[in-house]
Amino acid sequence: TRQVSDKVLHVIDYSNCAPALDRANLLRRFATVATEAPQSQKTLPPQPVAPQPGLKLRISSDAFESGLSHPNYSDVYLDGVRPTHLKPEKLYQHVGLRTIQVARWMFDYLTGYGPDMTEVQWLQRMIFLETVAGVPGMVAGMLRHLKSLRTMQRDQGWIHTLLEEAENERMHLLTFFELRKPGPLFRASVIAAQGVFFNAYFLAYLLSPRTCHAFIGFLEEEAVKTYTHALEEIDAGRLWKDMPAPAIAVQYWGLQQDATMRELILAVRADEACHAHVNHTLSKLKADEVNPFATGASQLP
Amino acid sequence: TRQVSDKVLHVIDYSNCAPALDRANLLRRFATVATEAPQSQKTLPPQPVAPQPGLKLRISSDAFESGLSHPNYSDVYLDGVRPTHLKPEKLYQHVGLRTIQVARWMFDYLTGYGPDMTEVQWLQRMIFLETVAGVPGMVAGMLRHLKSLRTMQRDQGWIHTLLEEAENERMHLLTFFELRKPGPLFRASVIAAQGVFFNAYFLAYLLSPRTCHAFIGFLEEEAVKTYTHALEEIDAGRLWKDMPAPAIAVQYWGLQQDATMRELILAVRADEACHAHVNHTLSKLKADEVNPFATGASQLP
Ligand SMILES: [Fe+2]
Ligand SMILES: [Fe+2]
Ligand SMILES: [Fe+2]
Ligand SMILES: [Fe+2]
Repeated sequence: TRQVSDKVLHVIDYSNCAPALDRANLLRRFATVATEAPQSQKTLPPQPVAPQPGLKLRISSDAFESGLSHPNYSDVYLDGVRPTHLKPEKLYQHVGLRTIQVARWMFDYLTGYGPDMTEVQWLQRMIFLETVAGVPGMVAGMLRHLKSLRTMQRDQGWIHTLLEEAENERMHLLTFFELRKPGPLFRASVIAAQGVFFNAYFLAYLLSPRTCHAFIGFLEEEAVKTYTHALEEIDAGRLWKDMPAPAIAVQYWGLQQDATMRELILAVRADEACHAHVNHTLSKLKADEVNPFATGASQLP
Repeated sequence: TRQVSDKVLHVIDYSNCAPALDRANLLRRFATVATEAPQSQKTLPPQPVAPQPGLKLRISSDAFESGLSHPNYSDVYLDGVRPTHLKPEKLYQHVGLRTIQVARWMFDYLTGYGPDMTEVQWLQRMIFLETVAGVPGMVAGMLRHLKSLRTMQRDQGWIHTLLEEAENERMHLLTFFELRKPGPLFRASVIAAQGVFFNAYFLAYLLSPRTCHAFIGFLEEEAVKTYTHALEEIDAGRLWKDMPAPAIAVQYWGLQQDATMRELILAVRADEACHAHVNHTLSKLKADEVNPFATGASQLP
């Protein structure tokens, strides 16, 4: 069950990847949330596993990270997320998948990913990857914004979904950073990685947005695998035994005050599953097609 | 008076530059808007001229430009906006002001800005300038996002205000584009200008964010002057006589269905006054200070 803090003043958009809700239903929900605590998520019917069916809440935060969209998942959905794999068919999908496979293999080898990682090793890995994960959405959102300015054409609703993804990844980072403060060598490698990846992704997105979204789709498939592995370690009692989730995570995902690391990792995994689905979907669209995840879209792919 | 379309499903953040409203008042307002048409803006008390005191509404748009924040100004405020000037004191302010003075002088000279411009000349000028105006907020928002990723520090609420400014400028552009479709030479110069300005602003923001915000503050002062000039032309009957505002503007600013170009230019001028105030304020802050315009901030500068 989730708890929504009394800071929630108002609900906004139904999300990145919301289910097809009719307008009357939405209006009723918004009216409820604006005047009192929202209905328990338990009263929602069970949802399909992917696409992620969360509504997003916007809470009036304490100004430190204002304007955030807050993911809001049902327990049924959180427990049901499983690693998925889209079978590549087109060339751009094969390119995206191969790039990820090579990158993951190298990164796993260099960092010693495997069955018996310590809490510190898990956190180092997560922190490093999340510093990188916040780049693509921002780059893509910016490039589409600039393109809209220079062609004077509408964006078709992509920018907000992309920026929300970037922000969501940044919140993953800030959450894990609460659990471990990296040293100078680690920080230097984060800076170097950003320098390389930002420029590479910027150029790649100019050349083929489609390939970039497929690449991110497969990357997020890997993230779902890795967080599922972490959950297995937690459930086996080998990782973060009864450790509480940091306060920032409780606030961001609307967790219960006594939430543990297990609830946090469940929420992060759900976010990554959502990114995989969204990016695979965007990769199949033309750049001037309407983003089906845009607020107000009546039906999701 | 404003009219809010029945597409408004829910209110979100009180804005970029909202007045100090107490929470109970906000809650009451949000509850009202979520369940029925909002109260007439006429019932709001008169507001100071700058900072802009609008609440922002988010409407569930038709997915083409989803997630937009919609400025919402009272008539009293709209009529009261006047050109302002911040007297530069610090070196970075002098640098920002001088750069704008030189740029404006050159641009006015090249484009023949003056007392007897035709509607086409006005639109050409506005379209060109708005294609450039959407760049700084996006660049600054992206650079702060990347910095937060690489330093693992919180952003302190700046990103959303900056991205909202960029989006607001892009909506200015898309609105004016409805009124005139530029030719190939004009389009080529837009592309060239973006190439130069994006890179210049990117580098300048890396070197001195403070100077960049002061620069935009003074730029927006000029924009308020120019739109005030346009309003004088409209009121003298020399410009857009009784011409209706395009549909996109009616939707974005929540204008009445029969709104004219005068109402549109009033709204755009109010936006620019808001940008001037926000950027001058940000220019005086350290990069790690809390953005006073962030959602949830209790008091505005
Ligand atoms: Fe992540
Ligand atoms: Fe991710
Ligand atoms: Fe503008
Ligand atoms: Fe502006």
